[in-house]
Amino acid sequence: MIKHVYSLALLAALSLPALAQDYKELPDPRRVDPVAWNAVKPGTHVYFGSADIRYDKLYAPEAASLRRSWEGHAWKGERVHTQFVVFTTTPLQNVSIETGALRDAQGHTIPATAVKPGFLRYVMTDELNAEGGGCGHRKPQDFDSSLVADAIDNISTINIGARQTQPVWLSVRVPANTAPGVYKGQVRVKANGRYLPDVLPYQVTVSSRTLPAPKDWAFHLDLWQSPYAVARVHQTPVWSQQHLDAMRPYMQMLADAGQKVVTASIIYDPWNSQTEDIYGDMVKWTKKKDGSWHYDYSVFDKWVSFMESVGIDKQIACYSMIPWNLKFYYHDEVARRDTFIVAKPGTAEYDAHWRPMLADFAKHLQAKGWFDKTCIAMDERPMEAMQHAIKLIRSVNKDFKVSLAGLYHKELVNDIYDYCVAAGSDFTKEEHRERAEKGWPSTFYTCCTEGFPNTFTFSPPAEAAWMGWHAANRNYSGYLRWAYNCWVKNPLQDSRFRTWAAGDTYLVYPGARTSIRFERLIEGIQAYEKVRILRAEGKAGPLEGILKKFEINALKAKPAGEMVTTVSEALNKL
Amino acid sequence: MIKHVYSLALLAALSLPALAQDYKELPDPRRVDPVAWNAVKPGTHVYFGSADIRYDKLYAPEAASLRRSWEGHAWKGERVHTQFVVFTTTPLQNVSIETGALRDAQGHTIPATAVKPGFLRYVMTDELNAEGGGCGHRKPQDFDSSLVADAIDNISTINIGARQTQPVWLSVRVPANTAPGVYKGQVRVKANGRYLPDVLPYQVTVSSRTLPAPKDWAFHLDLWQSPYAVARVHQTPVWSQQHLDAMRPYMQMLADAGQKVVTASIIYDPWNSQTEDIYGDMVKWTKKKDGSWHYDYSVFDKWVSFMESVGIDKQIACYSMIPWNLKFYYHDEVARRDTFIVAKPGTAEYDAHWRPMLADFAKHLQAKGWFDKTCIAMDERPMEAMQHAIKLIRSVNKDFKVSLAGLYHKELVNDIYDYCVAAGSDFTKEEHRERAEKGWPSTFYTCCTEGFPNTFTFSPPAEAAWMGWHAANRNYSGYLRWAYNCWVKNPLQDSRFRTWAAGDTYLVYPGARTSIRFERLIEGIQAYEKVRILRAEGKAGPLEGILKKFEINALKAKPAGEMVTTVSEALNKL
Repeated sequence: MIKHVYSLALLAALSLPALAQDYKELPDPRRVDPVAWNAVKPGTHVYFGSADIRYDKLYAPEAASLRRSWEGHAWKGERVHTQFVVFTTTPLQNVSIETGALRDAQGHTIPATAVKPGFLRYVMTDELNAEGGGCGHRKPQDFDSSLVADAIDNISTINIGARQTQPVWLSVRVPANTAPGVYKGQVRVKANGRYLPDVLPYQVTVSSRTLPAPKDWAFHLDLWQSPYAVARVHQTPVWSQQHLDAMRPYMQMLADAGQKVVTASIIYDPWNSQTEDIYGDMVKWTKKKDGSWHYDYSVFDKWVSFMESVGIDKQIACYSMIPWNLKFYYHDEVARRDTFIVAKPGTAEYDAHWRPMLADFAKHLQAKGWFDKTCIAMDERPMEAMQHAIKLIRSVNKDFKVSLAGLYHKELVNDIYDYCVAAGSDFTKEEHRERAEKGWPSTFYTCCTEGFPNTFTFSPPAEAAWMGWHAANRNYSGYLRWAYNCWVKNPLQDSRFRTWAAGDTYLVYPGARTSIRFERLIEGIQAYEKVRILRAEGKAGPLEGILKKFEINALKAKPAGEMVTTVSEALNKL
Repeated sequence: MIKHVYSLALLAALSLPALAQDYKELPDPRRVDPVAWNAVKPGTHVYFGSADIRYDKLYAPEAASLRRSWEGHAWKGERVHTQFVVFTTTPLQNVSIETGALRDAQGHTIPATAVKPGFLRYVMTDELNAEGGGCGHRKPQDFDSSLVADAIDNISTINIGARQTQPVWLSVRVPANTAPGVYKGQVRVKANGRYLPDVLPYQVTVSSRTLPAPKDWAFHLDLWQSPYAVARVHQTPVWSQQHLDAMRPYMQMLADAGQKVVTASIIYDPWNSQTEDIYGDMVKWTKKKDGSWHYDYSVFDKWVSFMESVGIDKQIACYSMIPWNLKFYYHDEVARRDTFIVAKPGTAEYDAHWRPMLADFAKHLQAKGWFDKTCIAMDERPMEAMQHAIKLIRSVNKDFKVSLAGLYHKELVNDIYDYCVAAGSDFTKEEHRERAEKGWPSTFYTCCTEGFPNTFTFSPPAEAAWMGWHAANRNYSGYLRWAYNCWVKNPLQDSRFRTWAAGDTYLVYPGARTSIRFERLIEGIQAYEKVRILRAEGKAGPLEGILKKFEINALKAKPAGEMVTTVSEALNKL
């Protein structure tokens, strides 16, 4: 039925191997005064820096953030990270990073494979609008644009120009079976075929506590996936084996972050074509010649099974019974074409369209054993429309779960199984308690509305980690963002989009590249899990006072980086 | 009657010459990793920097802000400024700055005396509270403290330690009779008895337009003065000739900023002892043996005349008929002691206390020729209380002017002559127009409530300049702040106070030292005057769109520095 049309220009611009290989960054539009480098001692410098800073390629790094060594703290099974910077007055060719195993005094090791350095890459970004938010259509010329460090690359060598700074992300995945202890390692940098003289020593103190594997994290992470963006960027026929193969590394990264929910589109274009790629219909609706309906679930089944195979198997969110345009597409056998109706929840036409599908879908889900984990999912619509839809759903099957990402409506708290409210709004304490006792997720989201905290490509990196701490403070079960990978036209080079602040639409990059934002989001989720475990043991007391500071208004007073550092240090002492 | 008690400890700590001479800064409580300096080229570096940055003494400056030269733009009669930085890996003794005259191609000059370099000095500051504001009692241990560059010193030499940064403020007062042109000059730095090799060239383009002298500025500036703090810090008997002599340089600086209002306290302690120094009674109230009242205006007259002599002569604000504690002090001849009553506006007791004074005061003001410029002044009290007070004032003399710094109350807009509302609130456009037609000042203020924009010692410097632009955008007549010089115990070294965010209580320093905040506030006022003049000529059109961005919410999206730079550049083109 409805087909995606790939731009030929894009097909020409991208080729499959290019996604995994090096690529050219855009030039920085800012005017730079090169004399600033005159004060830098000639040669190449290597220092640990801060994971809170997007280091500027054009300038030497802020001296206040530089250190010769780094000390990390981890539970067994935890991932920890920091950043180091190479800056140089002379050009460097074939720069590579040598890490290696970490060792404690007893001879225990964290293997070399657990340590991963990744070059930061620069992407074009813009800024908040004059009202302090990220919403609204935008023209590039109305906003200051600049290059920011965001993607973390998988390439093994890079060239660094004279008078440039190259940040490198350093990530250590402490295996769950590591013996507690202080593990020491070092970073060396090779350039132009030889080692640079500066060696960066670091250590990771591994505690006797164990962080569960991501699949066992309680944190309800819901980053919506777009299979259609992957098909476009990887140039694979949608739902072909090549498409699934292309998606696997991205979805594996997502599973490793503790993702719980599969994003399924059960109608065509549930979000009114707001993204670069339109979401297709995973359920094919066909109105037959005799007026009855046929529903083809083969794509839905393929997608859900695929996601189960990568370990994202806790929940299926089906969008949407209330698309923003109220257009419901289907194939008409009589007319032999794709068409649609427009129908409003609460009308007879709407009921007639949805009732048979919901009944059939329930039967299909039950047959697959998925009924209990499936939600009929909505995002913010007028409350009356949502109440109509819920009534209809329940009249078909009273056990159908419903999820909503939207405003807090007191009236819906007992109707919505997975309820996600906008950051800054919240359930009452009583509601949190009651919903938690029923095992119902109560989460929060950020989108273009929130100037901060957020995960735009220009957002301070610590704001991503802040999400987990905020959830711990407010007893949310998790966090939702509407776009894990709704890539824009040239996501590696330019994160801006026709609507919303740059980076709003994706957290990871083509070529299965992670980002500062995604890594620090995971940092916050790990922190949430640790707080949860310590609370269960009655040992989180010393943290609670500091945690109370994780309020959105507090971000006006103190940057997220300072807040996260303070509470992380307190956590490390427990 | 009520006397000030000077702390003997303070008398010992301060001596008169010390106020004008060098002094020792406090040590910075932050931990510093000195290795950051390893990347700085050995030796001493001199660059122009940005007036938007409080350069850190402990670290080399942000490279992104450094320039080899500076280009300023000025109207004739305007003061312009920038900052430069000296940073060094080796200690420097007796550092002095050599500036000199500026010359254009035709041989015209801006004389050397118009150019003034001033070393930035470091003062202890704290931070906003967890709610994002500056209000509330505070204990030092609950807040991060650090040293920040704020005061601009008048000393001519300074020592700079190894691995330290010393910012210097460079100010050029373009004489009103300067010929339009491009004037070039340079800055040289002398240390250890010889010139440093780096020379900083700069130029000031002087336009053919003329900025009026500060006394003719329309901008209604109202920074409240505390004569009592000057008496304490200079150890002079209050209202002695030495006291007046000590005050003159501070009040001259204030007049040069375009101050319009004399702050007079017509009762003892109108603000419930909230400041380090209690405001005394400039009018002495005596209840005589026969029950009648005597009012001694000699201090009031001395103060107002003194302020007239420095050119602050447009308005007198008399505080307060509604002190926060409703305590009214007086001398009782029968009891032969100082005492007080507590009386609420609207009560017979209150009326009986104030009616005779207001009648006598009106007569005195008329005799002095001051009646028309005197306001009975209030700051935010319950509206009912203010309405009672206004009714009483008007029943005594219907022409008495009233001023208020407080919330916007629609009901009071036609009653208050000089009405100052909290930043973020505003009059309607219609009210602005009507009040402007009557010549009534309609201003805004910031105090501890506003996390930003503000003039705390940790506030980004451009926020002070932002005030003038905001006034131009919203058609306010000016700006008010409640404390020009309510000095804390050791204002040169530590700007923190028992209440409010550090720096809330003063803008200038003992020894007639100005500050980044005060200089940039004047910058904004000058900009306001230029916009006003261009508007009158119908030439401000190209600015209006950019000016609209000067909204408080916009400061979440863009730092004040960027906003001010953008609009200043647009202004320079007109």
